[in-house]
Amino acid sequence: MRFTKGHGTHNDFVLVADTRGDLDLTPEQVRRLTDRRGGIGGDGVIRLAPTAAMARAGETIADDVLAEEPAAIWFMDYRNADGSVAEMCGNGVRVFTAFAEALGLATLDGGAELALGTRAGVKRVRKETGPDGAPWYAVDMGRWLLPGGPDAEAAGADAAVAVHGWAAPRPALSVDLGNPHTVVALGSTAELDALDLTRAPQVAPHPPHGTNVELVVPLGESAGGDGTVTGRVRMRVHERGVGETQSCGTGAVAAALAVRTWAAAGGRPPVDTWFVEVPGGLLRVRALPGGRAELAGPAELVFSGEVRV
Amino acid sequence: MRFTKGHGTHNDFVLVADTRGDLDLTPEQVRRLTDRRGGIGGDGVIRLAPTAAMARAGETIADDVLAEEPAAIWFMDYRNADGSVAEMCGNGVRVFTAFAEALGLATLDGGAELALGTRAGVKRVRKETGPDGAPWYAVDMGRWLLPGGPDAEAAGADAAVAVHGWAAPRPALSVDLGNPHTVVALGSTAELDALDLTRAPQVAPHPPHGTNVELVVPLGESAGGDGTVTGRVRMRVHERGVGETQSCGTGAVAAALAVRTWAAAGGRPPVDTWFVEVPGGLLRVRALPGGRAELAGPAELVFSGEVRV
Repeated sequence: MRFTKGHGTHNDFVLVADTRGDLDLTPEQVRRLTDRRGGIGGDGVIRLAPTAAMARAGETIADDVLAEEPAAIWFMDYRNADGSVAEMCGNGVRVFTAFAEALGLATLDGGAELALGTRAGVKRVRKETGPDGAPWYAVDMGRWLLPGGPDAEAAGADAAVAVHGWAAPRPALSVDLGNPHTVVALGSTAELDALDLTRAPQVAPHPPHGTNVELVVPLGESAGGDGTVTGRVRMRVHERGVGETQSCGTGAVAAALAVRTWAAAGGRPPVDTWFVEVPGGLLRVRALPGGRAELAGPAELVFSGEVRV
Repeated sequence: MRFTKGHGTHNDFVLVADTRGDLDLTPEQVRRLTDRRGGIGGDGVIRLAPTAAMARAGETIADDVLAEEPAAIWFMDYRNADGSVAEMCGNGVRVFTAFAEALGLATLDGGAELALGTRAGVKRVRKETGPDGAPWYAVDMGRWLLPGGPDAEAAGADAAVAVHGWAAPRPALSVDLGNPHTVVALGSTAELDALDLTRAPQVAPHPPHGTNVELVVPLGESAGGDGTVTGRVRMRVHERGVGETQSCGTGAVAAALAVRTWAAAGGRPPVDTWFVEVPGGLLRVRALPGGRAELAGPAELVFSGEVRV
């Protein structure tokens, strides 16, 4: 089987082009492909397949996916490394898009959008030049909310987090992006670097389905040449059921939105564009009108090869 | 650059065929190739190059390498994942041999040996059918010794090891295989499975250059159909400077020789053939005449591809 390996801020994937939509990857095959020593290695497998074939295979695809303009002809079939099916992956969408471009199945130059099908609905991706000069991809991640409500928004906290080695828990803010996040602010990057995240942080009240935990350091705001103010945040993340990772797309969005909420609670005018430094690279988060958020960042295809499955 | 990815009991390598001997891999390139998310991923890089080219490039190659019969025409240029040069790798030699076979540069069927050059001298490899039915490769690993001397051999111990979570240190035996090992016996596989090796075990007296630590459970001895007695050992290993790994070739040899020494100290007739269960698979260790040891096990080539370096 022909494959390509790619990553977005070091969140890495085995990519397979199944343009006929007849490749049936079993969980066991996914586990073997993502095995970092016995297989190719990756956080997940992304199969590019026709959206129409996914619908034929019994996947629940929203009716409008193929009717929209542009139509979501190609579908991102995302599997976690453990073989389970996943709805979406913020970093994966960018790498999927770079893969579709490399295959000649999408053209995003000149401002064209790629609409792609996912189990969480249609996602739209734009291409731009990132601050590092490399191509960046921006995707609308959908709606976000603060599940703690107005009181939590005003207080900037609705939970407490204890990291291994801390004398006492610290206040934290819950952010919902379809998956749960809990964000804690630290005072310095030195403190962030020294954190022991080899054990899962303890969160109170205990979330029934667990939570991702973001440890963030606000690095301030600055005005660009055009007067646009952007904020900057550094973060580390402990992913639910996984452990510390190099990057978490929804985690970066949660981190930026929590810092934005804290700034607003402190009476500062809201800043809508945030650069988020994750261990695996740099991402950009934008608060969009209508309570939506956009995530932008790089995508790299590293090598291609053949493997027996 | 064309490459192949392979592993021996899940000790994994990026293999590069440099049959002209003109590829100059920098430490930075090695680090990028072995990066498990941004590159191909591996514990090291193995470059197959002409031994004559290594000598021309200023490597210190023993004079007799090319004069011996069979001559060591091909050289295993092993680099650690951090970019540093390594002398030898017991699991790597087997994967190198499978790679040379796949390239058509070596034929080991019918009992023929491959002699290959390494920075630790010529290594000779034979091919056989392993107990799992797959091809296995057996290599003479050279001389071993008990640095504690006859007193340590009689007592079965010359050091003490403390693993995180233990109430007290336990006696251990030092084994030298060119690199240092310290072996501790445990009472059950349940205890072995439960060990916390996320922190380096503490060894006393403190070895000046550190040591690999093997935690082993002797599983007994049994006679085969032909009357040959073989022993069996299960182990986990904490590698010096690395942490816990799936497999360590010299560590498996040290584990088998320590258990053999303990059995002899207990008055049992010496058993020369040992199967060693490591987390990444099964290896076989033989005590050879003249104080030498042989290591045998599988080697798998998983995929090939192209990467930009």
